[in-house]
Amino acid sequence: MVNQMVGNQSVEFQNAPRIISRASVVGPKEGEGPLGTAFDRVSDEAEFGEDTWEMAESTMQKEALRTALGKAGLEACQVRYLFGGDLLAQLIATSFGNGETDIPLFGLYGACSTCGESLMLAAMAVSGGYADYAAALTSSHFGSAEKEFRFPLGYGNQRPFSATWTDTGSGAFLLSARGGSISGSDVDGAAQAGPDKKRFNGGGGESAPESAGRVLVKNAGISQAADEGYGHVRVSGATPGRIVDMGVKDNMNMGACMAPAAGDTIYQNLVDFNFQPKDYDRIITGDLGLIGRHILIDLMKEKGCDISAQHMDCGIEIYDREKQDTHAGGSGCGCSAVVLSAMILPKIESGEWKRVLFVPTGALLSKVSFNEGQPVPGIAHAVILEHV
Amino acid sequence: MVNQMVGNQSVEFQNAPRIISRASVVGPKEGEGPLGTAFDRVSDEAEFGEDTWEMAESTMQKEALRTALGKAGLEACQVRYLFGGDLLAQLIATSFGNGETDIPLFGLYGACSTCGESLMLAAMAVSGGYADYAAALTSSHFGSAEKEFRFPLGYGNQRPFSATWTDTGSGAFLLSARGGSISGSDVDGAAQAGPDKKRFNGGGGESAPESAGRVLVKNAGISQAADEGYGHVRVSGATPGRIVDMGVKDNMNMGACMAPAAGDTIYQNLVDFNFQPKDYDRIITGDLGLIGRHILIDLMKEKGCDISAQHMDCGIEIYDREKQDTHAGGSGCGCSAVVLSAMILPKIESGEWKRVLFVPTGALLSKVSFNEGQPVPGIAHAVILEHV
Repeated sequence: MVNQMVGNQSVEFQNAPRIISRASVVGPKEGEGPLGTAFDRVSDEAEFGEDTWEMAESTMQKEALRTALGKAGLEACQVRYLFGGDLLAQLIATSFGNGETDIPLFGLYGACSTCGESLMLAAMAVSGGYADYAAALTSSHFGSAEKEFRFPLGYGNQRPFSATWTDTGSGAFLLSARGGSISGSDVDGAAQAGPDKKRFNGGGGESAPESAGRVLVKNAGISQAADEGYGHVRVSGATPGRIVDMGVKDNMNMGACMAPAAGDTIYQNLVDFNFQPKDYDRIITGDLGLIGRHILIDLMKEKGCDISAQHMDCGIEIYDREKQDTHAGGSGCGCSAVVLSAMILPKIESGEWKRVLFVPTGALLSKVSFNEGQPVPGIAHAVILEHV
Repeated sequence: MVNQMVGNQSVEFQNAPRIISRASVVGPKEGEGPLGTAFDRVSDEAEFGEDTWEMAESTMQKEALRTALGKAGLEACQVRYLFGGDLLAQLIATSFGNGETDIPLFGLYGACSTCGESLMLAAMAVSGGYADYAAALTSSHFGSAEKEFRFPLGYGNQRPFSATWTDTGSGAFLLSARGGSISGSDVDGAAQAGPDKKRFNGGGGESAPESAGRVLVKNAGISQAADEGYGHVRVSGATPGRIVDMGVKDNMNMGACMAPAAGDTIYQNLVDFNFQPKDYDRIITGDLGLIGRHILIDLMKEKGCDISAQHMDCGIEIYDREKQDTHAGGSGCGCSAVVLSAMILPKIESGEWKRVLFVPTGALLSKVSFNEGQPVPGIAHAVILEHV
């Protein structure tokens, strides 16, 4: 057996899996944001042609996975295991989004950290020899999340400035030990181009189109490239997070709930791998938002570790705070996933960033625990992504 | 990299992890059932000294893990990763049950199949070299589940005969590549004995006792036994399941919802490993109950595969149907877990059963998806357990 343990809490993959495909599907608000042109598919309407927010989220997941498969020239049946999750009770977005694919499913819940959890388990499956291809898939939806955690949208509640805006989006990633990638010359040009991007038609009950969106590289010869490294991003390590509960009870300030967990995982990652912050080009949290970011940087400084130069947050990147009225930033396990797909991975693929610590952050609450007066513990799962 | 893939969907562990400790904590109704004397801890009251059903379930999880750790002579800090889940929205039983242990947590949701999902991921972590010790932990609680999925208990709704009774229980399992076990001479005698069993005191706000229950073998020299095989049960393979949706919409007939998924996973397991049903001493589903059992056996016969001689169901074993008014049987991801701990593993440890296919089954619904008219898809995750 190959020992893949590092330090107290981390994993270093001896056969680091490559991310051979990626896809992002988002709603209209995300399409209007600063990353709008970088997403693979932008819907004209948040319903995605469905009758309910929950089914809209399922449809986003289907489209994200289908798009990622299409880019890699893979069929669903070639993916051995799917690691997926969402924010809804009993993961219904995932359950109803992936029944037709017939891919064996590991349902995951780590709140908004689930994108990290799914990536590290998919990487473990590939590096451990349990899967040739594994998929990681997560989503969130503003409408379904507000209904699930806070108030019905029709209630029109006011949101404090500490609140984040749950992203409507789904990101899918395909991992393989074999290499193969959508990146390189195609991705930097084509993926950024907007005009001929396939968009949902919108409108009442019209279902999503059959096509899996823009195919950047169709069948890039992955199956023939058994021993060649086409992928330009590898998942080289991971630090699974533990629950950190500082007693914060404000469900309108998720950044404060999650920042201590992010700090705990980042610090442990640096210790386990004997890294300094500068060993990463970026340390990118999932959805701390502006308030959470300040808390994280302060907490890390208290530990003698300044990450202010490296730190980024997906929730801060995805919206234009001034123009889009999103207060502290974006959130949701779709937020980190679509920013990873549309912004972070392209920069690693191109070599602009050599090594990134990607740290999706989750706030562990339900409306039941909140209404029973429980605090909101946080958890953060960190994945090391490297250019190869 | 070691190839651990078998057939289309399964895993065969090249370094099969051993189950080195196990624990079961249940409520009073389960304690009065046919397996009552075999559980490690039986509470006198379903509240487990807490104010809410949800916190009661968290307390069960804490006690189950603490008991399993105590039996193995391990501290929580020695367990590298915890794979845990429950039935509640956003896994609050797991989140609030495991914050204090500081074990990095992978939150899982597969409805009542989560016990299988947690065992196979813990086994993958150990066999892949990601963890020396990994824990699998699941729970369910009748009170929290009725509130979550159906009606408040105070409403006193009538339950049809096809309904199952959600088990109040939590099961914990420790896996290691090193061997070490609570089994052997101790387990068959001592674990079955009842009189000096530690019980919760019950009564209002009294918290659970500090002690981790009966310690069968304290510190059995595991850390010194690096290369010796103390464990008598190994997880030798797994077949992760896929979602199977036959369109059943009756949330009072979970057996019918889950039986097709159980059949799909069991059949795939037999194909992948080139086994016949008789190659297993038992094929044990999680919580199909009486109706689901009949459907499963019929479905398998349609595929030319008769498993009626080998089939058992944890939900049928845990209650006395005549005396306990539990209708079709027990259910919940605590049900399969506590029956595995209290009944199945002892028989494999003793060698009475050489090889068992353990197949927890899950019904994928939430009250939202149910109220929106969605069907209840099923999923089943199978784990091969062998005497060594």
